[in-house]
Amino acid sequence: MTLIPRLDMAALDILPLDPSTKGLPYEAAALTVGDVGRKGWNLLKGDVPLPAAVIRDDILTANSKWMSAFIETNGLFLAPHGKTTMAPYLFDLQVADGSWAITTATLQQVEVCRRFGVKRVLLANQPVGRQAVDACFTMLRADRDFELYCLADGPAGLALLADGARRLPPPASNPLRVLVEIGFTGGRTGARTRDEALAVARSIVATPGLKLAGFECFEGLLPTPEAADKLIDDVVVLAELAAKEGLFAKDQPIIVSAGGSAFFDRAGERFNKLALSAPVLRVLRAGCYLTHDSIGYTASFRRIQKETSLKLPPGGLVAALEVWAYVQSRPENIRAIVGLGRRDVGSDSGMPVPVRWYRPGSAMTAPEDMPKGHEVVGLNDQHCHVSLPADSPLQVGDMVSFGIGHPCTTFDKWSMLLLVDKDYRVTKALKTFF
Amino acid sequence: MTLIPRLDMAALDILPLDPSTKGLPYEAAALTVGDVGRKGWNLLKGDVPLPAAVIRDDILTANSKWMSAFIETNGLFLAPHGKTTMAPYLFDLQVADGSWAITTATLQQVEVCRRFGVKRVLLANQPVGRQAVDACFTMLRADRDFELYCLADGPAGLALLADGARRLPPPASNPLRVLVEIGFTGGRTGARTRDEALAVARSIVATPGLKLAGFECFEGLLPTPEAADKLIDDVVVLAELAAKEGLFAKDQPIIVSAGGSAFFDRAGERFNKLALSAPVLRVLRAGCYLTHDSIGYTASFRRIQKETSLKLPPGGLVAALEVWAYVQSRPENIRAIVGLGRRDVGSDSGMPVPVRWYRPGSAMTAPEDMPKGHEVVGLNDQHCHVSLPADSPLQVGDMVSFGIGHPCTTFDKWSMLLLVDKDYRVTKALKTFF
Repeated sequence: MTLIPRLDMAALDILPLDPSTKGLPYEAAALTVGDVGRKGWNLLKGDVPLPAAVIRDDILTANSKWMSAFIETNGLFLAPHGKTTMAPYLFDLQVADGSWAITTATLQQVEVCRRFGVKRVLLANQPVGRQAVDACFTMLRADRDFELYCLADGPAGLALLADGARRLPPPASNPLRVLVEIGFTGGRTGARTRDEALAVARSIVATPGLKLAGFECFEGLLPTPEAADKLIDDVVVLAELAAKEGLFAKDQPIIVSAGGSAFFDRAGERFNKLALSAPVLRVLRAGCYLTHDSIGYTASFRRIQKETSLKLPPGGLVAALEVWAYVQSRPENIRAIVGLGRRDVGSDSGMPVPVRWYRPGSAMTAPEDMPKGHEVVGLNDQHCHVSLPADSPLQVGDMVSFGIGHPCTTFDKWSMLLLVDKDYRVTKALKTFF
Repeated sequence: MTLIPRLDMAALDILPLDPSTKGLPYEAAALTVGDVGRKGWNLLKGDVPLPAAVIRDDILTANSKWMSAFIETNGLFLAPHGKTTMAPYLFDLQVADGSWAITTATLQQVEVCRRFGVKRVLLANQPVGRQAVDACFTMLRADRDFELYCLADGPAGLALLADGARRLPPPASNPLRVLVEIGFTGGRTGARTRDEALAVARSIVATPGLKLAGFECFEGLLPTPEAADKLIDDVVVLAELAAKEGLFAKDQPIIVSAGGSAFFDRAGERFNKLALSAPVLRVLRAGCYLTHDSIGYTASFRRIQKETSLKLPPGGLVAALEVWAYVQSRPENIRAIVGLGRRDVGSDSGMPVPVRWYRPGSAMTAPEDMPKGHEVVGLNDQHCHVSLPADSPLQVGDMVSFGIGHPCTTFDKWSMLLLVDKDYRVTKALKTFF
């Protein structure tokens, strides 16, 4: 149950930024990732072009600390989903705050973790295809200090892993650790019945090069907490059944894990009821908590604060990610067109929410809250349609900040986000690897 | 009316590819953009990890030639929208096939064009913010052979350009060329009335450093051809009125332009009715024709083939862009989960369409057409839910190709796409700059 060491951020800082990177000033001299935070740029002074995606460092730090305290207080472990941000600097922050591992969705994401020194990765998917399967075993052979966990949900996928282990046998001390995925009818991946799940577990135990690590589910997209409970309970029951059957090796804790950012309280509550004679590692994989959001996860977190029986640290999660853009036109008095679009912000969890505004070069000393009645009513590739009251103060050239829903689909629009302090001074470039 | 010279592709070929680039083999040695096409990789042999976005080079070339012939035969000019692909290699192909300029949506995109040698850019937006406005004038001052066109739709935006021209006056021989944007009530940017549009035109003429270049609209998202006609007709009428008023300088053609990929025939038809004593440049800005698509633009193109009075060259546009992924699980006999998601493919114009499949290592010599009844019914960040018949041949590890709608929102999911021949041999890396 050892945690993992900090990442190699020097290797990130020295990487050159492509001069065409969206969010960099035009005609900027050649810059490394590390240079950006030393330039003294301020968003409100117009030092960076808009649109720009920024993360408030004070809020980010507080969110990370809050989750760290929540996990520790409740006897849980965190393997935050790295696919949300794909920003190694944020992985390092999560590791510094006590994460047990970084979770990923693809082998490309695993490789990014390894590149910057993450020593334990939970690939919350089943590797498929020769390139992906071989990459798993190649990394286990190359670095005995690197631990890799992945999922399996049936015999067909498991056969691919078994083939890989035959082609490229991992060291006995560093097998591919496999969690059995539990699903439900009509859902995504995952064994549909307890019998199927147990059969997968037995096959893992019988396959050289693989090791049964535990059971997991992804409950994040379920419609209600009760539906999440049912799936999480299956994970608990299967861990009990497998332990009873003696499927787990004695030299390791038994892992139960769940994946989303909406019901992590329910996973924690249920996992905490599991008592086995062997040590149990209860691993949450939430990823969106770090920047939080202004729509869906705000609502989820309100429910958690209201309902959970787990201990909640003081404070709570606050939206840290904002996308800023200029008002480009106000062609009618009840309509503004703002210069951000689908290429800059996700909308799968709701349209971005106008939060604050600022007029560069004016007497305003700080952004002001957006008056009531401003609403995004349309999003094109590079434009955003804002419906507003006829007496809205917004005019061409004003800056507007938008809160977002579901950080995953905004992060992936940017190869570089900017970390800013509360006065919108740029303190760091957050290079991403999508 | 001179066309622009070819781009500097040597500058692109020597750029190093980040080793974490999605679509590159894991653990690939350090590669430049130009190296990729020389590796002899074949998608069907599993030489590249999936998901991968590929473009068939034979279809791409044919689409480009078709549009080139269409434009030339009908007395039109093409400034293809570069924001669709942001792939300089494709800009170069478009220039080689006779494009008059490359269109862009943002200053970052203009800078990418300049970086690789595009000598005429139509920024189909109004520059806003100090960085953007100053960048326009800085580039006109730095390179007198570089021509920049942009839009204005009202006095507020125009005032920003006038300020910029005062701060950084462009050479008399290389002013900022401005097209007046015509819009409609309830629409995006663009002057709402003819009087407003003419007032903008007069202000451009009166502003030192700016030059009135013509009138334009963006009709691409309108619901019907008739609605597009109405907007395009406004552009024609305003060009006539402005010419009558003597607003255009005598040393240049008068430009009328329209923007989308759905109604470019209607723009061509209407622009061809415009007869002025001065030369007229009729500029279409379609961008999606190059890879075409499998959903919305396929339907639009059928309408064009059926209805247009313009001359159509033989052949026609065919979908060239495919996203390939592995079947990751078949957890129920009527459901497969495939390893691509919102991070890999756009869905704003409809869910991706399963088109072909291939079983690596089998006796299949080529991908086969997908049997009937396979449909994408859900898309998560990294997973795709496919509903299928119980007797579908698909099994874990099979490769599936998906056609897409609206190329703009699939291109931007990839910092590198792969150009492939008809046998899926990789012939080139298409580096993008989003």
